[in-house]
Amino acid sequence: MKTLTEEILDVISKSEVVTIATAGPDGPHLVATWGDFIAQLDTGDGKTLLIPAGGYKTTETNLGKDNRVALIAGSKQVPGKSGSGGGFRLTGTGRIESNGKWKDMVAEKFPWARAAFVIEVEGAEQLL
Amino acid sequence: MKTLTEEILDVISKSEVVTIATAGPDGPHLVATWGDFIAQLDTGDGKTLLIPAGGYKTTETNLGKDNRVALIAGSKQVPGKSGSGGGFRLTGTGRIESNGKWKDMVAEKFPWARAAFVIEVEGAEQLL
Repeated sequence: MKTLTEEILDVISKSEVVTIATAGPDGPHLVATWGDFIAQLDTGDGKTLLIPAGGYKTTETNLGKDNRVALIAGSKQVPGKSGSGGGFRLTGTGRIESNGKWKDMVAEKFPWARAAFVIEVEGAEQLL
Repeated sequence: MKTLTEEILDVISKSEVVTIATAGPDGPHLVATWGDFIAQLDTGDGKTLLIPAGGYKTTETNLGKDNRVALIAGSKQVPGKSGSGGGFRLTGTGRIESNGKWKDMVAEKFPWARAAFVIEVEGAEQLL
């Protein structure tokens, strides 16, 4: 079963900002990317999201101790539950890969990226 | 000194989605609101953000054990660092108030809100 449905991928592609959370000793840590960056890196497997990693050093450190991540994408360009916009919360695990096929795919589109932030999505919940 | 500068408040008001993180036993937890909801609840004190709380039950539970929060607001409608949009990461502490002046202020604009999610912003960093 695909966790990343067409509806979720559509919301991601229409989100201005997509925000990703990890947790570490200094509390919750957030990074962000543009929704269209993720959309340009569609893996097609229904579960893996790729994000070009420029910095994300604290995220990488946090993932080394606790690889759980949460992510929110939302857009006013989709109808959503109440008609004023739609958004999803995704949960799963993440890792920073500085080589391999995902890194190559990221680097082709985003030459400035030092690595691929690879997220395996396990759960999805519509918030809005 | 005001942590919430005019520039940051402008980005918040122009953000479609603003995402807020807490950390708890089940990992990082995210909730979201619309940027214009926060903009409608301007406290004017340069440090306090108010968010109308509908659910936010896990957030409330997490805050009871660790009140640190992080928040990201970003918009393509502002120039930002590289011209393609701007975004800020804010950090501070949060609490859910189901009565008092902040709850009253929230309920006046958003009658469906059960409480005010009050965030005292202590740090701000421009990401984009």
